[in-house]
Amino acid sequence: MTRTVKSIDYEFIENGSVTSPNGFKAAGVVCGLKRSGAPDLAVLYSHTPATFSAAFTSCVFAAAPVQLGRKQVLEQKTLRAVVINSGNANACTSETGLQYARETCELAARKLGVRPEEVMVSSTGRIGVQLPMDIIAAGVEKAAAALASDAGAAAAAAIMTTDTVPKSAAVSVKLSSGTVCIGAMTKGAGMIDPNLRVPHATMLCYITTDAEVPNSLLRDFLSRGVDNSFNRITIDGDMSTNDTVLIMANGSSGVKVVPGSEDAEIFYEALLALMQQLAYEMVMDGEGATKFVTVYIEHARDETAARTCAEAIANSLLCKTAWFGCDPNWGRIVAALGYAGIDFDPALVNIFYNDKAVVTNGGDAGTPEKELAEILKAREFSVSVDMNAGNASYWMWTCDVSYEYVKINAEYHT
Amino acid sequence: MTRTVKSIDYEFIENGSVTSPNGFKAAGVVCGLKRSGAPDLAVLYSHTPATFSAAFTSCVFAAAPVQLGRKQVLEQKTLRAVVINSGNANACTSETGLQYARETCELAARKLGVRPEEVMVSSTGRIGVQLPMDIIAAGVEKAAAALASDAGAAAAAAIMTTDTVPKSAAVSVKLSSGTVCIGAMTKGAGMIDPNLRVPHATMLCYITTDAEVPNSLLRDFLSRGVDNSFNRITIDGDMSTNDTVLIMANGSSGVKVVPGSEDAEIFYEALLALMQQLAYEMVMDGEGATKFVTVYIEHARDETAARTCAEAIANSLLCKTAWFGCDPNWGRIVAALGYAGIDFDPALVNIFYNDKAVVTNGGDAGTPEKELAEILKAREFSVSVDMNAGNASYWMWTCDVSYEYVKINAEYHT
Repeated sequence: MTRTVKSIDYEFIENGSVTSPNGFKAAGVVCGLKRSGAPDLAVLYSHTPATFSAAFTSCVFAAAPVQLGRKQVLEQKTLRAVVINSGNANACTSETGLQYARETCELAARKLGVRPEEVMVSSTGRIGVQLPMDIIAAGVEKAAAALASDAGAAAAAAIMTTDTVPKSAAVSVKLSSGTVCIGAMTKGAGMIDPNLRVPHATMLCYITTDAEVPNSLLRDFLSRGVDNSFNRITIDGDMSTNDTVLIMANGSSGVKVVPGSEDAEIFYEALLALMQQLAYEMVMDGEGATKFVTVYIEHARDETAARTCAEAIANSLLCKTAWFGCDPNWGRIVAALGYAGIDFDPALVNIFYNDKAVVTNGGDAGTPEKELAEILKAREFSVSVDMNAGNASYWMWTCDVSYEYVKINAEYHT
Repeated sequence: MTRTVKSIDYEFIENGSVTSPNGFKAAGVVCGLKRSGAPDLAVLYSHTPATFSAAFTSCVFAAAPVQLGRKQVLEQKTLRAVVINSGNANACTSETGLQYARETCELAARKLGVRPEEVMVSSTGRIGVQLPMDIIAAGVEKAAAALASDAGAAAAAAIMTTDTVPKSAAVSVKLSSGTVCIGAMTKGAGMIDPNLRVPHATMLCYITTDAEVPNSLLRDFLSRGVDNSFNRITIDGDMSTNDTVLIMANGSSGVKVVPGSEDAEIFYEALLALMQQLAYEMVMDGEGATKFVTVYIEHARDETAARTCAEAIANSLLCKTAWFGCDPNWGRIVAALGYAGIDFDPALVNIFYNDKAVVTNGGDAGTPEKELAEILKAREFSVSVDMNAGNASYWMWTCDVSYEYVKINAEYHT
C-alpha cells in the first residue's frame, strides 16, 4: 500500500494528459535550447480565459519567470496560455532575464491572439545564462502553429530535463451536475525536496480542468493538494529556483464547482488522486532511483514531530544508500530518527519494513535478516515507525541513491 | 588557505599520537569483533588519575556507552582509562547493552588495577547487536597486557571502521612554566554532520595531555574547540548514536594551566590546531571523498545566517556531486543558498571558487569555464560567498560525493 486514495467516483483516463479536458490545446516542439536536439519548448493554451492559481518555489534566488508568475497570481483573474522551455532556467539573469521573460509573454500573446498578461512563462534547465531570444521567438512561433487538442503528450515530453519518461495523466470525475475532466503534466527527477509552504525541486506541474472553478477555490485546492502530494516527496533534498505548480480551469464542461459544496470535496479528491499519481511517478523516475520507499510515522506526539521524523529518514543519505544495497540497516533509520531533533522515548519505538518488525521497543525485533532482505529486493516497500507517543501521523515518498544518481549529477553539466 | 591556525609557539610532533604526552599508555589489538580480522579493541591508560571532559552525540538513540559516559562526566572528577571497541556500536541494545558496558568497565578496571568508575567505554560499528562479552573480556585482557607508551598508533588503528587511514597527531606547546604535550586520535569517515551543541557522526576523538588542567577549564576548551573543528565538518549530513570527544589531562609534565591566564589561551590555540588537523584529516578521509572543499560565508547578516548558508551548501547533494564531476556548477550553489531559509538580497551576492569570481551581483561573473574547471580539478579548493549583508562570517569543511561513497554505504552491511 503506497498511495492514499479514497474511493470516490472518478477514473483515470487512458493516455490522459493536459489536453484531455475540453477546450485545451498544447504543443511540444524542438526549438534548439537543448544541445541534444530533444523537444524543449511547450505551449499550453485554453480557448477561453481560465481561472487559475499557482504555487512557486520559496528559493530566495527565484528565477525570472517565477518572479513574473507571482505578480500574475496577484494581479490577474484569468490566464489563456503558458509557455514552458527546458534547457535554460532563466535564473540569476537579473533585469535582462526578467525583460526576456516579459518578451516571451508578448511574443506568445501576439501569436495566440491573447493579451500578454494572460500568458505565464516557466523555464527549467541551466542557471545563469540569458535566454537566446531569437531561438525562443522561433520556438514560440513553431509551437503556436503546432497547437492541437491531442498534443498533451508532446508538451509533457518537451518539459523534461533529466526525467527518463514524460509524465502525464488525467481523471474524469462525476459531479452532481455532470462529468468534468482534470489533466496534468509534470517534470521532476532531481532537486526534489519537500518544504512547508510551497512545492519545490526543479519540479514543474501544469494542471488543466474543464470545470468552472473560482480562483479562491482553486487556490484552496492547490494548497491542500500540494501539501498532500508534491510536498511529501523527496529525491535529493535540494530545492530549485524554478519550481511551479499551476492549475487552470476554463469551464468548458459547463459544470460549476461551488465552494463549500459536496461537489467541491469530490473534485478535490479526484484532483488529489491525480497529483499523487504524478508525485508517485516523479519519485519512481527520481534520478538513478531503483527503489520507491514510503515512510510512515505513526503515533507521534504531534504532526510536526511526525513530519520532522519522516523527513529525517526520507532524506538520510545513509538510509538511501542502504536501500540501494537492499540492506535492511535499521541502525541507520534509528540514527536518523535520533538526530531529527524531536524528543521521544526510544524504548517505545517499533519499526517495520512492510509488515515485518525490525525494531521492537527500541531494540532488534529478531526478524531473520533474510526475510527483511527479501522485502528490500522489491522495487517498492515501506518503512513504518510507531513512536507510541501520541496520535499524529505523517507519510512521505522517497527513493534510494544509486551510482546512477551520482553519475547523472556529476555529468549533467551546467 | 584551508586552515585557520594562528601563529603561536607550538609545533606538531612527528608521528605524534595519544601516547606522545607523558604518563599515557595505549594498546590496539585484534579481539575478534570485526569479521575482517582487523584490530578492533583499543585501551588508553593514564598512570595517574586524569581530569577530563567529554562531549557526546545529541542523538535520542544514544548508545549504551554514551549513556554511561554522560553520567561519568557529571559524577566523576577523574578518569584512568578508556576502552574503545570497533565492529559493534552497543546501540539500541536496551538494559542488557548498558549492563554490558558497565561490565566492560569492571573487566578493564580489574586488569588495570583501577576503579570501574574511572574507566570510560566507547563503541562504534554495527547497531542493535549485543556485545559478545566473552570476546570483549579476552580482548580487554589482551590489550591490558599490550599497553605501551609507544602504542598510540596501534590504538588509532583499532578504532577505525570505514576509515582508510588511522588518524593520530600531537603538538608540543611552550607555556610560561614549561612545555606540555597534547596528543589525539580520531576516527570518522561516515555519518558526519555538524550540530549546534555537540559533535556527532560516527566520530570518536580521544585527546590526552600531560598538562595539569582543572575539569572546568577542560570543559570550556572542549566546547570551544569542538565548535571550531568537528562541528564545522560534514561528510554526509548524518549523525551517529555513538559520537564522543574526550579529553584527559594527567598533569605528568608538572605544568599547570590556570583559568584566565595567558597560558590558558596559548594551550587552547594549540589544542584547537590539533583538533582542526584531525577534523581536516577526517574530511580528507571522508567515505569515497575525492575533493576537500572549504565553504566560506562572508558579510552575512549574523552568524546564524552565515552558518545556515554554509551548511546548506556543504550538505547539498547536488553541489557535492557537481564537485565530484569537477563541474563549477554555481547554479547549484545559488539554489542551496536560496533554499537555506535565510532572507537576503540575491542581487548583492558574489561567489568565488578560490579567488576566481563565478557570481557577481547575483549573476554570471563571466569567468571562462576552463579557468574554473582547472580549480575544481585540484584535490582542495574553496567556495566563498560574499553576501554583502553585514559583518558575520562562518566557514565549514566538506567533501564531494562519489560513486565510491555509494558503494561503501550500499555494501557496508550492518
